[in-house]
Amino acid sequence: MPDSAVYPQSLQRLIGFLSRLPGIGRRTAERLALALLEWPEEDLRHFGEHLARLRQEVKTCALCGNLSDEETCAICRSPGRQVDTLCVVETAAQIPVFEKSGCYRGLYHVLGGRIAPLQGKGPEDLTIGALRRRLEQGGIQELILAMSPDVEGEATAAFLAGEFAGLGVRITRIASGVPVGADLSYADAATLASALGGRHAMR
Amino acid sequence: MPDSAVYPQSLQRLIGFLSRLPGIGRRTAERLALALLEWPEEDLRHFGEHLARLRQEVKTCALCGNLSDEETCAICRSPGRQVDTLCVVETAAQIPVFEKSGCYRGLYHVLGGRIAPLQGKGPEDLTIGALRRRLEQGGIQELILAMSPDVEGEATAAFLAGEFAGLGVRITRIASGVPVGADLSYADAATLASALGGRHAMR
Repeated sequence: MPDSAVYPQSLQRLIGFLSRLPGIGRRTAERLALALLEWPEEDLRHFGEHLARLRQEVKTCALCGNLSDEETCAICRSPGRQVDTLCVVETAAQIPVFEKSGCYRGLYHVLGGRIAPLQGKGPEDLTIGALRRRLEQGGIQELILAMSPDVEGEATAAFLAGEFAGLGVRITRIASGVPVGADLSYADAATLASALGGRHAMR
Repeated sequence: MPDSAVYPQSLQRLIGFLSRLPGIGRRTAERLALALLEWPEEDLRHFGEHLARLRQEVKTCALCGNLSDEETCAICRSPGRQVDTLCVVETAAQIPVFEKSGCYRGLYHVLGGRIAPLQGKGPEDLTIGALRRRLEQGGIQELILAMSPDVEGEATAAFLAGEFAGLGVRITRIASGVPVGADLSYADAATLASALGGRHAMR
C-alpha cells in the first residue's frame, strides 16, 4: 500500500498542511495530525476558524510595521516608551526578541527585509522612505541599526548609515561578538575578529 | 514587558493552540505561528477551514474502527485483503505503522485503548463486544494480538486470549525482542528476557 493510501484523504490533507511548517517533517506532521484528531471538536473548530482569519486579525502597525491587533501596535501606543530612540530591525518577528531581553525601552522600525541584490531586493523594496519621514519629523536622537551581523545585514546597515548621515541623528550598530554563555574554543574566526574589534576598556 | 504582551493577542492565541500539540514547546509554537503569518491568505483559509471540519471529515470505519473518509475504511473495502486474519490494535493510529511495513495483508480491529484499571479503563470500555461479533460470524482463522509489549498491553492481550479461547480461532501475539538495527549492548533486561524467551531454531 503506498504511503499516500495509509491515511484517509482528509487526514492526508491535514498532514500535507502541517508538513509545510518549518522544522516539521513528514513523520512529525503525521504525529501532530493524529494528536489533533483527539482534540475536542469545539477546540478544533476554534483553532481552525482562528487560523482561517489570521491574516485579517494580525495587522501591521501603521507607524513602525510591528505585528498588531489594532491600527498601531502596543509598543507605539505605550506611554512608557523612550520616543527619542529608534531600533531598526529586519522583520517584525525580531521585535519580541528585543522585548523579551527587557533591555530596550525605545521604539522600533521594521525594515521589511534587507538589501539582497542576489534575491533582487534593493533599497526601494524596504521601508526606508517611511523611516526617513520618521527621522525628518524630528525628536529622534538615536537610530540603532539591528540587522543581523552577516554580509547582507552589514551591507544594509552601511547603506542606512550613509543614507541618514546628514540628519544629525546619532547612528549606532548593535555589537557583534562571542555570544554570552558560549565556549570561546568554538567561536568562528569572523565572530572572534568582530569581538576583538569591538573590545572595550574594563577600567 | 511580560511575555504575554510581546505578541498581539491574535497571534498569542494561535501560539496557545500550537503549544498544545505534542512535542511543541512555547518557543517552537512561536516560530510556527510566525511562519504561518507568512503563508498566503488563501492557504491559511483552506488550512483553517479543513481543521475546523476535521472531526466531521475523518470518520471511524463501522467495521474495524480505522480512520476513514467513508462509512467503511479503505482496508475493509479493499478486495485484495486476506479476510481470514484479524490484527487487533489499540488505536487507529497504529494501523499505518503496520501498513507501512508492507508485511500484513489481513484486516484490523481497533480496540479503542487497553485495559488500564488505574485509569479506570476496563474491558467494557473497549470494543471487545464488536470483536466477539466479528469472530462469531465465522471466517476468521487467526486473531493477532498486537498490543504494545508493556504491562497493560500484555494484560489486555492475556484477557483477550482468555476471552476468545473457546471460539476455535488461532490466537497469536506479536513477537517482542531486540529491535532490528539496535545495538544489543543497550538492550534492557526485560527486552532481552523477551528476546531469549521467544528464540527460534535457525536450522
